Amino acid sequence: MEFHGLKTDLYELTMAQIYLEKGLNKKAVFSIFVRNLPKERNFLVVGGLNNLLRDIFEFRFGKEELSYLKSLNLFKGWFLDWLEEFSFKGNIYAIPEGRIVFNEEPIVQIEAELPVAQILETFVMNRIHLGTLLASKAARIYSVAKGKILVDFGCRRAHGFEAANEAAYAALSTGWNATSNLEAGKIYGLPVSGTMAHSYIMVLGEENAFKEFYRHYSDKAIYLVDTYDVLKAVELTVKLAKEGYKPIGVRIDSGDIPTLVKKVRELLDRNGLQDIKIIVSGGIDEYKIHEWRDLPIDGYGIGTKFTTSSDRPYLDIAYKLVEYDGQPKFKLSEGKKTYPFKKQVYRFYSQGKFHYDFITRYGTEVEGEPLVEPVISEGILLKEFGGWKETRERFLKDFEHLPEDLKKLKKVEYEVQIDPILEPENYLPKGS
Amino acid sequence: MEFHGLKTDLYELTMAQIYLEKGLNKKAVFSIFVRNLPKERNFLVVGGLNNLLRDIFEFRFGKEELSYLKSLNLFKGWFLDWLEEFSFKGNIYAIPEGRIVFNEEPIVQIEAELPVAQILETFVMNRIHLGTLLASKAARIYSVAKGKILVDFGCRRAHGFEAANEAAYAALSTGWNATSNLEAGKIYGLPVSGTMAHSYIMVLGEENAFKEFYRHYSDKAIYLVDTYDVLKAVELTVKLAKEGYKPIGVRIDSGDIPTLVKKVRELLDRNGLQDIKIIVSGGIDEYKIHEWRDLPIDGYGIGTKFTTSSDRPYLDIAYKLVEYDGQPKFKLSEGKKTYPFKKQVYRFYSQGKFHYDFITRYGTEVEGEPLVEPVISEGILLKEFGGWKETRERFLKDFEHLPEDLKKLKKVEYEVQIDPILEPENYLPKGS
Repeated sequence: MEFHGLKTDLYELTMAQIYLEKGLNKKAVFSIFVRNLPKERNFLVVGGLNNLLRDIFEFRFGKEELSYLKSLNLFKGWFLDWLEEFSFKGNIYAIPEGRIVFNEEPIVQIEAELPVAQILETFVMNRIHLGTLLASKAARIYSVAKGKILVDFGCRRAHGFEAANEAAYAALSTGWNATSNLEAGKIYGLPVSGTMAHSYIMVLGEENAFKEFYRHYSDKAIYLVDTYDVLKAVELTVKLAKEGYKPIGVRIDSGDIPTLVKKVRELLDRNGLQDIKIIVSGGIDEYKIHEWRDLPIDGYGIGTKFTTSSDRPYLDIAYKLVEYDGQPKFKLSEGKKTYPFKKQVYRFYSQGKFHYDFITRYGTEVEGEPLVEPVISEGILLKEFGGWKETRERFLKDFEHLPEDLKKLKKVEYEVQIDPILEPENYLPKGS
Repeated sequence: MEFHGLKTDLYELTMAQIYLEKGLNKKAVFSIFVRNLPKERNFLVVGGLNNLLRDIFEFRFGKEELSYLKSLNLFKGWFLDWLEEFSFKGNIYAIPEGRIVFNEEPIVQIEAELPVAQILETFVMNRIHLGTLLASKAARIYSVAKGKILVDFGCRRAHGFEAANEAAYAALSTGWNATSNLEAGKIYGLPVSGTMAHSYIMVLGEENAFKEFYRHYSDKAIYLVDTYDVLKAVELTVKLAKEGYKPIGVRIDSGDIPTLVKKVRELLDRNGLQDIKIIVSGGIDEYKIHEWRDLPIDGYGIGTKFTTSSDRPYLDIAYKLVEYDGQPKFKLSEGKKTYPFKKQVYRFYSQGKFHYDFITRYGTEVEGEPLVEPVISEGILLKEFGGWKETRERFLKDFEHLPEDLKKLKKVEYEVQIDPILEPENYLPKGS
């Protein structure tokens, strides 16, 4: 049995011990949100939620975890006993995975006894941050690809296999076509695909390598054509296609892509091979895809720059106390102001597109579409969100309604209104 | 039992099936190296090797993995049987963890039957890439910190807990003082530490919060002083110190740091509290540490920008076939040229500092210090490398000998010579 209880920072537990001893175990609400969208992102896509809901009930402390904590000589016996009994019995409110969100919107809100909600901080933040980071990057790539095939090739340089698997899931959740990552394929039931490596060509020689691949995987064969000379390899492909070894595509992984793909397309077409697709890989990201939008490229294998979210490898995400024992909690410090209370987000549409979002106190009824849903109540999961296919449906529906200028690479700000009743100045002690 | 066999890309297995069927199972050598150091790194530190050596024997295929692969309808019965028997029986040559390396140097070389070495590509690359990326970033931060205290606070925004744990290990391996990450503390036996959160201050009030923390954790207490007004909180700290609640440090997480730390230091010193340390956190990286090098700051809590290696979240790492059945293998393509053969690296010193490195064919004897060692022979681990403490010793020793200009943030190239016998042009077929 693997428990997740140590997936946390030390201070969560040292603080929790004090909270409990002082009887500070009233209901607290913590909110996870992204304070500012970076200049490289016009929108975010909620990710990591299903993963969090799957694992939160395993955020517990078994024998090994407790014995480690005991060895630190920081925790009292009664506190370790309390941890032994720990399991999440609180409430979670969240915006479902796949939905498009913006700055300040409460992606996840944890409502529980203060020490419980505190202890979960690091775990919940890590899951939601990673999932949302990757889903948002994948969606941005999808938004410039305009229907071209997108395959995740980024497993090898992701920050560990946990990140690789979340990346593959994020890709399929936001409209991509497949991943090369087998473990992610197994865990999440994702479609997997792949081509061949340069080393394979170097060992078998180009002609043999292509023919053998076709013999084994006919309807899935994609020939890698840039090991030696792209045009010669495509001529070979034409010859083999005429002999019955016709691949579904060719892949180009290096070289002067704009020049090469035009020549390759022309060569294939001239030989009646209009249906052989051209796949490009190697250092691809949304900027390249946009730059090459008018070239005859049918799809991309996208690796490192996607799985590491390399242009922006982290989000300005926060987990902040917004309510304790019914009282508003907030921070006023410059650039780090937080709005108190458990919240709801309403979305307003105009002519079939998002018009603006409005954040208010949870429970306030407004006309728009509410985004926040209760998902766990007193430790009971209220709803099954399904897997990547359901997440993808939610994403594609939102994407259809996303204003067109937000789908571009140029920075555009979407309007997020904050209800004046959330302004922290309203709740300052009198006379301060 | 957890097996790692699916931590790979689909094409590794589709290619391996062909290799086996065609009898292409002679000895192959694949080499992992970083082609070019990015402009943000003057040196790299080998990481991920101990982790790889620990797990490579669990890179196998159990019932679940095989049944998943069968479901893909790509693999024949005999190949699945072969995978069922798969376990690493080859050789590994590597440069030990913690050692400083440069471009083109073979960090890990896998020598095994071609299909075996091919299948391991994704797994080995991911482990060595992540470990080396994080150790190199941690070492760069260490190199500008000039003895200041460094604590890893970056668990929450690392790309998953696997990455968070590798980051904590990398930090301690390169001279840092502690991590806040409990799981990493347990797995790797790392020193853990932590302070307190703003939410804790918001719930208890500053005075209570400080006093209670001191009561519980006296000799480890560090007061967080920026929730409301830094100078008022430090005045409170002075008052509490006089009452017997004297912390070992104060932490400032926001605000105008250069102005604040000078005032805080002055205020503490004026009250005879020269031994209370000033710790700064919030968006810290090596650039900030360098900028603030002359300020009275005793240490840093470093989070996101470290654990995501945010200025350079991936390395230009490659896993290339360099030898097959005793024959040299290489690529000539522009910008992607590879040098054939299993290799050794010799390091030459001058006046107690690295002078230059020389890469040659393995087995060539030269005067310098050889960096590559055999670590696994026919599936047998030859040597125990110990844990983070031993890695840290190797790193600190190399760091002492690292030329001073390479320790700075400005880009400097170290000289790596490549033996002319490795030039691929020597091995082109006659007449080509």
